[in-house]
Amino acid sequence: MTDMARPRHRSSGNRYGNRPTMKDVAARAGVGLKTVSRVVNGEPGVTPETERRVQEAIDALGFRRNDSARVLRKGRTASIGLVLEDLADPFYGPLSRAVEEVARAHGALLINGSSAEDPEREQELVLALCARRVDGLVVIPAGDDHRYLEPELKAGVATVFVDRPAGHVDADVVLSDSFGGARDGVAHLIAHGHRRIGFIGDMPRIHTAAERLRGYRAAMEDAGIPVRESWMSLGVTDPERVRRAAEEMLTGPDPVTAIFTGNNRVTVTVIRVLAEHPHGVALVGFDDIELAELLRPGLTVVAQDAAALGRTAAERLFGQLDGDLLVPERIELPTRLIARGSGELPPAP
Amino acid sequence: MTDMARPRHRSSGNRYGNRPTMKDVAARAGVGLKTVSRVVNGEPGVTPETERRVQEAIDALGFRRNDSARVLRKGRTASIGLVLEDLADPFYGPLSRAVEEVARAHGALLINGSSAEDPEREQELVLALCARRVDGLVVIPAGDDHRYLEPELKAGVATVFVDRPAGHVDADVVLSDSFGGARDGVAHLIAHGHRRIGFIGDMPRIHTAAERLRGYRAAMEDAGIPVRESWMSLGVTDPERVRRAAEEMLTGPDPVTAIFTGNNRVTVTVIRVLAEHPHGVALVGFDDIELAELLRPGLTVVAQDAAALGRTAAERLFGQLDGDLLVPERIELPTRLIARGSGELPPAP
Repeated sequence: MTDMARPRHRSSGNRYGNRPTMKDVAARAGVGLKTVSRVVNGEPGVTPETERRVQEAIDALGFRRNDSARVLRKGRTASIGLVLEDLADPFYGPLSRAVEEVARAHGALLINGSSAEDPEREQELVLALCARRVDGLVVIPAGDDHRYLEPELKAGVATVFVDRPAGHVDADVVLSDSFGGARDGVAHLIAHGHRRIGFIGDMPRIHTAAERLRGYRAAMEDAGIPVRESWMSLGVTDPERVRRAAEEMLTGPDPVTAIFTGNNRVTVTVIRVLAEHPHGVALVGFDDIELAELLRPGLTVVAQDAAALGRTAAERLFGQLDGDLLVPERIELPTRLIARGSGELPPAP
Repeated sequence: MTDMARPRHRSSGNRYGNRPTMKDVAARAGVGLKTVSRVVNGEPGVTPETERRVQEAIDALGFRRNDSARVLRKGRTASIGLVLEDLADPFYGPLSRAVEEVARAHGALLINGSSAEDPEREQELVLALCARRVDGLVVIPAGDDHRYLEPELKAGVATVFVDRPAGHVDADVVLSDSFGGARDGVAHLIAHGHRRIGFIGDMPRIHTAAERLRGYRAAMEDAGIPVRESWMSLGVTDPERVRRAAEEMLTGPDPVTAIFTGNNRVTVTVIRVLAEHPHGVALVGFDDIELAELLRPGLTVVAQDAAALGRTAAERLFGQLDGDLLVPERIELPTRLIARGSGELPPAP
């Protein structure tokens, strides 16, 4: 642990104290700041003679970067890359921050990018991060074939997949129990008297969406309730698509009395639709939402621990980098049903 | 505009069609995928002979990457860096996504990182991104002295600061009108009969926090209301600190009948405190919040256009990269007061 481990409130002594800075090193070596940065980062473009002068200045001044442990060991700043699928989805906020905190505790920088749910974009971004010499990657995959990563894996780039599994490569995977969580959430609605229950989820090619649909079907089957096609809608999480799906379920020939939503983007739109609806319709959403407890009724959710997903993935990654973990594992974290009112409404007559 | 300009729903013809892929190039040139990636990205480690073979395969197959416009012009994938201050703050979600959409429209990759509100960390991250050869930077600064960037600016790294201004360097800056927005929000509370109004904001060294406090003071002064020290609380946005501040204002010798909150992190905690409070206390928050309209009462806010901030900053950045904009500008975007109920409550007797 370096002093990067303390996340936010470091003492002013560390931040503004008398520690030698890169500027001091540059002044003593008689070079520019950029040259010092190049030497510290192991970047090309510095002559051996200049590198020697900078190194002497570093030694004489006792200059250490914050991430000194790794710099000293590997000769440059360690960095890890995180590939998300949507920068604007609040689910990824705590996940990203948890990955970052683990990275900082290991003296490494975190660099993020987004695939915007496009497999080709994911590949491009992953390879671009590798070309920029990240030491490891945490990937929330958009695609389902990761053989393009094999050369990088062989070259020693540590990799952990999170939220969704990897395809066709043997790698560490950290997931939430999407199937079990959805089954529990739908069983909760059934326990409150519902039989006509709708499911609105993300695109079926996305692993989590497919698993949550499977959980919905399993809970219905466990209760002996035949599922109608018109009760299931999978597609993009775009508000117009979701709104139309919810309205169709509520007004069709077999109108639902309860809805299970497959992720927080879907939930937010369905909450808005139900707020306009004349009868109370029960709702359980996959993923927790900020201020969910203050809605009327409070929102019942199947909560994932997004921070634990990020932390677990990042710890596996640094375990790989430290050579501790050799056999790829699949780790599944439990979900938690939080009853707040919307999931406990009885069926409207 | 390349076809990256269409953000999410590209035709399957583009994505899975018969366009030659990097694999095709690798097969034709008789090299590995990594080698093709190196050549396309202009990375070292490829012999001139191999590079020539790969280039011939690229030409023969007509291989083009998505970001072909820039690759062809500059010989490698363009990338821009975005330095945020907090990965988990939902305000930065739409801002980041807007920057990414502009980057994609220009065929460039976006790489993010977070300073976690630490000026030293910001500098480290910016220099690390420069060392990884980003073409441009969008920075939400944590620090107030950016002279460390001068060598990079001179070396031609395009830079735009957003959300907060740069310190001691002449650079493009895109801001919201924090002063005017806060003044309007507090004037709104005064117009609804309040005189004892509290202000809870972020740390005063943060530009936006200081500007919003200045707006609060200006509105109070405009109305001839003397401000008491006990009505103003600035500090970290940590929930415990904010909760204590709100409770002190509500129960002190001159209890407030309304609160103006300085950003969305503060607002969320104050909403929770007020939900437990026996009397109706009016609230106006800086920044909009998802589902604010469904709270009881609905949350009145001074909304920033986070997406417009990101888009404007990114467009300035690509303007710089294209050589169109030479004189740094300071662009200020207006805010918008959205009345939903909480800011229109009368003072409790």
